Amino acid sequence: MPEGSFASLDFMFHPRSIAVPGASTQDGPGSFIAAIKEMGFTGDLYPVNPKAEEIAGLKCYPRLLDIPGHVDHVISSVPLRFVEQLMEECIAKDVKSVHFFTAGFSETGDEDATALETRVLARAREAGIRVVGPNCMGLYYPKGGLSFMPWLPTQPGPVAMLSQSGANAGEFCRTAAVRGLRYSKVVSYGNGTDVRESELLEYCAEDPETEVIACYIEGITDGAHFMRALRKAAAVKPVVILKGGRTEAGSRATASHTGSLAGSLQVFDAAVRQAGAVRVERMEELVDQAVAFRYLKSLAGPRAGIVGGGGGYSVLASDEIGAAGLDMPTLPPEIQQKLHDFTPTAGTSVRNPVDTSVGWGPDGLKPMLETIRIVSESPNIDYILYHTSYSWGAMRAEGPSIVEVATEAAEKLGEVAKTSGKPIVCVARIPTTEMGMAGTLAFQQNVASAGLPVFNSVQSAALAVQRLLAWQAAR
Amino acid sequence: MPEGSFASLDFMFHPRSIAVPGASTQDGPGSFIAAIKEMGFTGDLYPVNPKAEEIAGLKCYPRLLDIPGHVDHVISSVPLRFVEQLMEECIAKDVKSVHFFTAGFSETGDEDATALETRVLARAREAGIRVVGPNCMGLYYPKGGLSFMPWLPTQPGPVAMLSQSGANAGEFCRTAAVRGLRYSKVVSYGNGTDVRESELLEYCAEDPETEVIACYIEGITDGAHFMRALRKAAAVKPVVILKGGRTEAGSRATASHTGSLAGSLQVFDAAVRQAGAVRVERMEELVDQAVAFRYLKSLAGPRAGIVGGGGGYSVLASDEIGAAGLDMPTLPPEIQQKLHDFTPTAGTSVRNPVDTSVGWGPDGLKPMLETIRIVSESPNIDYILYHTSYSWGAMRAEGPSIVEVATEAAEKLGEVAKTSGKPIVCVARIPTTEMGMAGTLAFQQNVASAGLPVFNSVQSAALAVQRLLAWQAAR
Repeated sequence: MPEGSFASLDFMFHPRSIAVPGASTQDGPGSFIAAIKEMGFTGDLYPVNPKAEEIAGLKCYPRLLDIPGHVDHVISSVPLRFVEQLMEECIAKDVKSVHFFTAGFSETGDEDATALETRVLARAREAGIRVVGPNCMGLYYPKGGLSFMPWLPTQPGPVAMLSQSGANAGEFCRTAAVRGLRYSKVVSYGNGTDVRESELLEYCAEDPETEVIACYIEGITDGAHFMRALRKAAAVKPVVILKGGRTEAGSRATASHTGSLAGSLQVFDAAVRQAGAVRVERMEELVDQAVAFRYLKSLAGPRAGIVGGGGGYSVLASDEIGAAGLDMPTLPPEIQQKLHDFTPTAGTSVRNPVDTSVGWGPDGLKPMLETIRIVSESPNIDYILYHTSYSWGAMRAEGPSIVEVATEAAEKLGEVAKTSGKPIVCVARIPTTEMGMAGTLAFQQNVASAGLPVFNSVQSAALAVQRLLAWQAAR
Repeated sequence: MPEGSFASLDFMFHPRSIAVPGASTQDGPGSFIAAIKEMGFTGDLYPVNPKAEEIAGLKCYPRLLDIPGHVDHVISSVPLRFVEQLMEECIAKDVKSVHFFTAGFSETGDEDATALETRVLARAREAGIRVVGPNCMGLYYPKGGLSFMPWLPTQPGPVAMLSQSGANAGEFCRTAAVRGLRYSKVVSYGNGTDVRESELLEYCAEDPETEVIACYIEGITDGAHFMRALRKAAAVKPVVILKGGRTEAGSRATASHTGSLAGSLQVFDAAVRQAGAVRVERMEELVDQAVAFRYLKSLAGPRAGIVGGGGGYSVLASDEIGAAGLDMPTLPPEIQQKLHDFTPTAGTSVRNPVDTSVGWGPDGLKPMLETIRIVSESPNIDYILYHTSYSWGAMRAEGPSIVEVATEAAEKLGEVAKTSGKPIVCVARIPTTEMGMAGTLAFQQNVASAGLPVFNSVQSAALAVQRLLAWQAAR
């Protein structure tokens, strides 16, 4: 990490004032200003646009230099042709960091545009200005009131996300948020002319607010630096990487997207493995693995006790455990007997997988929770895998609402896990109704609050557990 | 197919009257009687239970023999100890088919229970009575008013589903219903003592109401018969099979579930391939493949034109196309030029994948539809893969609702596909909000009404397309 690098990046996350040249006069929920206001930024915020007096209730300035106070951070949406002029103004204004939302630079493959990017970066370097982008969404730092999109969580948390794609950064943050994740530092860095994955990994390694690091990377500019940075980060925190452009088709797409040369997947894969990080294949897996690292942290071993409703689902859940290379040992006779005494229903399997009711019967959640409690006692299992669905019970006319049932189930599962000391890996299948979605969201949120991981299929849960175990074993 | 087999199964789907011995006095939405009434059965329906005068507004009879009229079909929920007596009453009453919801037979592994199953079957055979089950949900035939669960579609359609698991039959039917599928004949046959997969496959092969056959199978009793039946069915209709118990862990689960010996996956796989059927690995894939066969039917080739919002998603979509072995050719210069002229936004990729707006901008759906129309003109692509998401646009305060936007998008996509002659494979990512779910459900339903397939990830769309092409090539 170059000297001063941590300090300059840390300063970037803590600006006292932000200017937004090229702010749209049609301020809407998609604007940077709206996102920053929503996140509760307490510093000074200055829209800059010669065509407006006021934007979003804030005084608007014709040019950056017209702003009376100091400006630490600039978010540029100005058209390409004004970019050099803006950089000169930033230098004159003693700005510390500039985020170029502006696109149309080297990612176009155009020579002039690439030369412009190089010139702008050179001027920034001379002046000691850090550049994020161009062609990106920039910073989301809820603790400091920074955001790049509407409707992101305002509450901070321990997960960092570094992404070449703004859309993927947003997708990750929003998708994982409904499974409980909250964020320390999120950076969409686009073409990565200056600030990019390697330095950010080094920063996150040292950042006390970050415990888990998730990355979406399309291409690496400096392989040696990346390897050093990844080693440093992975040595102290779990690092999960989704590589965009892992196929020939995908790597042609990254060239158009961020101008990245995707490079060989084999080389990338080897680097990740040697560093002790985890590579995943798709966005859903990036979310799943971050959830696993955030809520499971570690596991004693691969042996699952599977509990859920529906014999057919149990068979398919067992197949996923088997396919992921995990274990599902037959429960000891005394545990089977306890289960049998407790649920004498014909056709109920007690060997492992174990059938249970789904929580809508007259006894509510009791049978399910008691079943899990008994299975947790089994000395030959390392964790419970509980699978359920909130799609259809929702449609009953009477009794407690699906949100109430789901919330109570999640809270009680947390208690059972705490008492037994065996983690419960929860699975709520994708719902297919609006009410089912309400129940599923309530379940997910409360499972996370209870400190447990939740997935949307046994397949994804099993894959995340397997990768967690492999990561543990390699350390 | 044994002589009279088609007729006896066909009669089973068209009973004039149904008796339900062991009907619960606490009639609720989960009962067979409620499900059958909901499905609009027009024949006579008789609850049988000595402890009630009336169930669900219907006169209840103490015993089967007390019913004054004839009884064609019996749905038994009586406890195991009354099963032999019930079979004798069925014989005396000249019943044609009996469905045993009753569980606790051979699937328990208990010798006495297995012997009981054998004795009951023998008596049924002597009397020419067809037996469905035991340990299963039985029949769902919307055209004839038969159902085994609440909230299944009442409208019939061309997809048959044969399943050893009742829960998996329900999961398939409900999950695929929100993607447009409707059903011809659905049978949950449990232990499959009499009626089971092979004879049902032969039936579905001849059934004029069935165009696509989906199966969930845990074990095969008669391999030679299965092979004949599968060949016969797969020769005339697409057959997709999910094999429960494909791993060692899963096959232990099938033994407890339906008493099935799962057998070697290699042998099963070879049989499926030789017959020209398609094996899938999980429930989601069974739904996806049935959707592909129902709405795509055939494809000219593997070359996708990818269109969607968000450069990062486009990269990941391209990777999925590459990973599935499909193609994503660079669009010809004249098509790229047309796209460039139409959307001169900096950073927009026009080579393939092609970026488009998501439909929430001031021009609404026009840019997206026009982009797809232009890509459709490209002679080097066989189909459009359109990916989108309805999670977040929903949260805007103004403009048309997400359901309106999603509905219009789906209808217009249908029109573009019809005009261009190029199929549009649609992907709407899993939503993460209730309003997003409303939009996604509206999109899915209207995409299906427009005759197009819709999936929940590019990964699953690409896999289904790849399997469809492989199936075509093998014919």
